[in-house]
Amino acid sequence: MYAVVLAGGSGTRLWPLSRPERPKPFLRLLGNDTLIQRTVARLAPLVMPSDVYVIAERRHLGLVAEQLPAIPAANLLGEPIGRNTAAAIALAAEAIDRPDDDVMLVLPADAYVADEAGFRDSLRTAGEVARAGSLVTLGVKPNRPETGYGYVVARPPAPGAADLGFLIVDRFVEKPTADRAADLIATGLASWNAGIFAWTRSTIRDCLARYAPEIAGPLRAICRSGTPADLDAAYPNLRAISIDYAVMEPASLAGEVTVVPLDAGWSDLGSWAALRDVRQGGAKPADEGGAVGPGGARDFGSTGTLVVAGGRLVVTVGLRDVIVVDTPDALLVCSAERAQEVREIAQQVSTGRASAAQEEKKP
Amino acid sequence: MYAVVLAGGSGTRLWPLSRPERPKPFLRLLGNDTLIQRTVARLAPLVMPSDVYVIAERRHLGLVAEQLPAIPAANLLGEPIGRNTAAAIALAAEAIDRPDDDVMLVLPADAYVADEAGFRDSLRTAGEVARAGSLVTLGVKPNRPETGYGYVVARPPAPGAADLGFLIVDRFVEKPTADRAADLIATGLASWNAGIFAWTRSTIRDCLARYAPEIAGPLRAICRSGTPADLDAAYPNLRAISIDYAVMEPASLAGEVTVVPLDAGWSDLGSWAALRDVRQGGAKPADEGGAVGPGGARDFGSTGTLVVAGGRLVVTVGLRDVIVVDTPDALLVCSAERAQEVREIAQQVSTGRASAAQEEKKP
Repeated sequence: MYAVVLAGGSGTRLWPLSRPERPKPFLRLLGNDTLIQRTVARLAPLVMPSDVYVIAERRHLGLVAEQLPAIPAANLLGEPIGRNTAAAIALAAEAIDRPDDDVMLVLPADAYVADEAGFRDSLRTAGEVARAGSLVTLGVKPNRPETGYGYVVARPPAPGAADLGFLIVDRFVEKPTADRAADLIATGLASWNAGIFAWTRSTIRDCLARYAPEIAGPLRAICRSGTPADLDAAYPNLRAISIDYAVMEPASLAGEVTVVPLDAGWSDLGSWAALRDVRQGGAKPADEGGAVGPGGARDFGSTGTLVVAGGRLVVTVGLRDVIVVDTPDALLVCSAERAQEVREIAQQVSTGRASAAQEEKKP
Repeated sequence: MYAVVLAGGSGTRLWPLSRPERPKPFLRLLGNDTLIQRTVARLAPLVMPSDVYVIAERRHLGLVAEQLPAIPAANLLGEPIGRNTAAAIALAAEAIDRPDDDVMLVLPADAYVADEAGFRDSLRTAGEVARAGSLVTLGVKPNRPETGYGYVVARPPAPGAADLGFLIVDRFVEKPTADRAADLIATGLASWNAGIFAWTRSTIRDCLARYAPEIAGPLRAICRSGTPADLDAAYPNLRAISIDYAVMEPASLAGEVTVVPLDAGWSDLGSWAALRDVRQGGAKPADEGGAVGPGGARDFGSTGTLVVAGGRLVVTVGLRDVIVVDTPDALLVCSAERAQEVREIAQQVSTGRASAAQEEKKP
């Protein structure tokens, strides 16, 4: 079993701290380690650093190497530019030289997990299920009708079957309305798509070839007999699409996808509000004021606040559910309930403009 | 008629923009001019700059001279340190060489007035009333049971008398509870004490000698036959007390105080919320986003917000009644309804500590 950590991202959701040149995986948002350091650390002892691969935009490989010295340099894969997860996973499946029936875990570099042992247990189960040939996704039990996530709707392998630790996925539902999300949750068969996958190399290569040949084909050819210059030339023309849209959804309609439950206090940290929730939920580091970063923070009677202090003194007074993010060239003060809008706002304001064109191409 | 502008203050209420080294009068909070520049400008043509005197802490006289080049240098009076308004007014009454029956207007350097012609009309009336020998204060018609102000309670000069443009003050009520304030307003005889006064030089000198001899006595002796070194030695030992407590309150009990109404859209700008209210009430300068200062500000769907931008981009999202003040070394994010607490908070946090000892001595 080996792990492929996806360290892409445009650096807009957690603007202004995350930027195109230093996206979320490389930030110290929880404690002294960056999110990618935490991601790699929590894989051990299930997957040790020598079996961890990281795929990132080439310009970020320096950050990866600096932050993860225990990972062999040969395990770091650079994309010429980010082209979403289908391309990244296809590149990993072709470029990483492992036996066809080894299990490849794929996981984002920037998520949060409260119960790390429970997380590894789910990954271990997913690996076992994956050996039987399905595409396995980890499903998080929803605790609210979240509209920002994708949902996985599943059923037992056979009617009345014993709990085998996995379900067969019927379909994916991307970002439902709140009513639809509540309906999905009420069925008891829906879970959040955490973007964490397990499969054998042969399974994912077969599925990519079938469902996303326009991505898998060129990459396979280049990895077999091409040059780095060929990759540079081809990569920007690859379709920028997520693995969910490109492979998991069509494969689920063919009954090829299974889901293994993940009940370990997971968050995608996909917005400042999500980070706030994780920090309030017991994951708060030593600085009790809720501050992240080197600057001092003083609060007078606020609740539900997240303060990310930069180099200056930040004083908050009587706020309710407000996010404050202080960086040298930009300050964000945002109602927590509107934190989902930060991604779009970051693209509108000048410092985020560089990543806007790229984001728009995402499905 | 001449005017004495009081440019004291500890620089804590509008922290972190106001600081002990640059208090509120010297800040550009409304448009391109500083508050003291606006204060002097709105006196003309009733009082021209050659008849305006400014009294300030000596360390601030450089700012005064720089911001008010039209005022003769001889009209700038420096206090060794700030000792509240009674001492400042006593010094002005002794040191300014004007005839005894000239009317001296006294006004703070940092208030806001919407209707400047109406303001001068009230000052003109106050000057006429003052010639008859009373201590005149301007009273603002209350439009809410504000607990942060002092109230002046008055009655007509005689029962059933015609409106002579002034009332006799019965008493001062400092910072009442909200219930008490509502009761006062319901009588129709209470107004806010704006800290704007008119009297002849002889009247205020007499009253200071009677009600505050421990302040007036030493200053009179020094101004008559002392040296600047004598002033330096004596001033720090003067009682730091407001003119309201020291003179107006006891004089009102003796029937020596009158009040002239001021209905010109006045605000003491005594908190960030007060500044926010003035800017929302039509006094907003050209920058529609509600931002003050050189930095850019972008808002996405906030209401009741005041953003004071420094050199950086400030982005606000979905806030309600929140004040954001961005300065190079400190950031304040404060619920508008708790803006009154900023003064105390500024004293608690390190950058405001220098002024705390002095503030505590105020009555």
